[in-house]
Amino acid sequence: MKITILGCYSATPRTFTNPTSQVLEINNHIFLIDCGEGTQVELRRNKIKFSRIKHIFISHLHGDHFFGLIGLVSTFRLLNRDIPLHIHGPKGIKEAITLQLKLSNSWTDYPLHFHELTNTESEIVFEDEKVVVTTIPLQHRVYCNGFLFREKSGDRTLLIDKVLNYDIDKAYYRSIKKGKDVVLDDGTVISNNELTKDPKPAKSYAFCSDTKYDEAKIPLIKDVSVLYHESTFLESHKHLCAKTGHSSAIEAASIAKKANVGTLILGHYSTRYDNIELFRDEAKTVFQDVKIADDGKVFEF
Amino acid sequence: MKITILGCYSATPRTFTNPTSQVLEINNHIFLIDCGEGTQVELRRNKIKFSRIKHIFISHLHGDHFFGLIGLVSTFRLLNRDIPLHIHGPKGIKEAITLQLKLSNSWTDYPLHFHELTNTESEIVFEDEKVVVTTIPLQHRVYCNGFLFREKSGDRTLLIDKVLNYDIDKAYYRSIKKGKDVVLDDGTVISNNELTKDPKPAKSYAFCSDTKYDEAKIPLIKDVSVLYHESTFLESHKHLCAKTGHSSAIEAASIAKKANVGTLILGHYSTRYDNIELFRDEAKTVFQDVKIADDGKVFEF
Repeated sequence: MKITILGCYSATPRTFTNPTSQVLEINNHIFLIDCGEGTQVELRRNKIKFSRIKHIFISHLHGDHFFGLIGLVSTFRLLNRDIPLHIHGPKGIKEAITLQLKLSNSWTDYPLHFHELTNTESEIVFEDEKVVVTTIPLQHRVYCNGFLFREKSGDRTLLIDKVLNYDIDKAYYRSIKKGKDVVLDDGTVISNNELTKDPKPAKSYAFCSDTKYDEAKIPLIKDVSVLYHESTFLESHKHLCAKTGHSSAIEAASIAKKANVGTLILGHYSTRYDNIELFRDEAKTVFQDVKIADDGKVFEF
Repeated sequence: MKITILGCYSATPRTFTNPTSQVLEINNHIFLIDCGEGTQVELRRNKIKFSRIKHIFISHLHGDHFFGLIGLVSTFRLLNRDIPLHIHGPKGIKEAITLQLKLSNSWTDYPLHFHELTNTESEIVFEDEKVVVTTIPLQHRVYCNGFLFREKSGDRTLLIDKVLNYDIDKAYYRSIKKGKDVVLDDGTVISNNELTKDPKPAKSYAFCSDTKYDEAKIPLIKDVSVLYHESTFLESHKHLCAKTGHSSAIEAASIAKKANVGTLILGHYSTRYDNIELFRDEAKTVFQDVKIADDGKVFEF
């Protein structure tokens, strides 16, 4: 699992920081999460192949999370994309994109599918044999969802030395990996536990931005491997959190702790701060495994 | 008169080139012309004060000329702008911007005025005592206007030594600068020509992008000081001009020559070319005073 931070600062793009966008690589999928202005350039800078992006998830319709989407959709067309693109985001996103395509007398030659979200309860928005993606309803100034990406557990791992101790036809290997016991020709039952070990643990990634401090989401993100949680403010400005619908570093860390996550990544910093290390310092007073996002940074788990 | 090129490449933004946007400073006005994705960052990079921009002119609604507008409008608000902003552009631009503001449950605290253009004849879109701005109808794939910015001729310049030769009350200086003769108390008439010289010549700038080769605009841009004319293609791809509604370097130069302009600036290069010097080389076979735009380049006249 690999997370590439294209942008992780709040509000306005600057010459040296980008608004929110990130790329999650999980179980051979590449998902784009949020798409602030300039995302297409940051994708190029980070050498993410456009054609591998098939699903884009947009948390909410504030500009620093989606103003780059129309440019990316248009560029895909100019580059002669032909594979489908799925956009998952709040109701209204389809109108915003299609209106701008219409005004430019343009269109997409590739299939463009909108999946508009209105549910205030968590729901599955994408699922295949490798991954399931569910929404995490967030509390912000506008309708907003985080997204939870979970690898599906793979097959059990064959202990091949053990298997070869017995005269087992290879045709049975697949059912053994699925957890079945084996019955030999003489009737002896070989327990699956003897022949396999647990599959590689499934990883999970929860993206939670933008949101105020809200414990309601904790059951949804319980025990995830990695939580990206916004931390717009330091303690010195924590009085702004409630009014703006954002979180402080310590609030993000409290959620991480209560949800028992593996690693917490902080981001969505207010551009008023010069030293983002302070976010880690403050969060670490509550939760140990804290990393801080920065534009261009890559995290592998 | 100063022109700052924020971006002058066609189609998609890249890590090292920007789509169309430029800043014209003329007679103490600052005008923003077109606003491709990333313009707000380029304005910062080029240290253009946001608050000095009061008028934005958008040629047409292709993405590489206006996808940066919503971000700039939003950023102005986040920075607590309170002075009015006027946006001049094709019909539809108001809907595109206001829809996106509405979706983000946002607005502007400053007065935002849209001046939507539908006329296919040239018309005045802005005028004050210093400058007049008129549209230049262009032939492109969608409704498109260039813009002609003309300084108004100032007052005649007093030849103060000559004036002091006579007993002329200062109260008359203003009318002398306006071209009036002076009648002395003894009835002697002093011709204005003796007391003043011609005002500084008024400068003019014509922005013509995007457009195919079209001589219809020549009367409108006749004798302008500086013409910015798109040149998307070199001769090697001139067969693409008609289909795409763009011009070659030589076509741009032909327009410059026929319109008898002072200086031609080329831009809107297709991103297929690595060496933009070739645009100058080709244009110079037709017209002498050719300059080539590049991102971050500043021209002063």
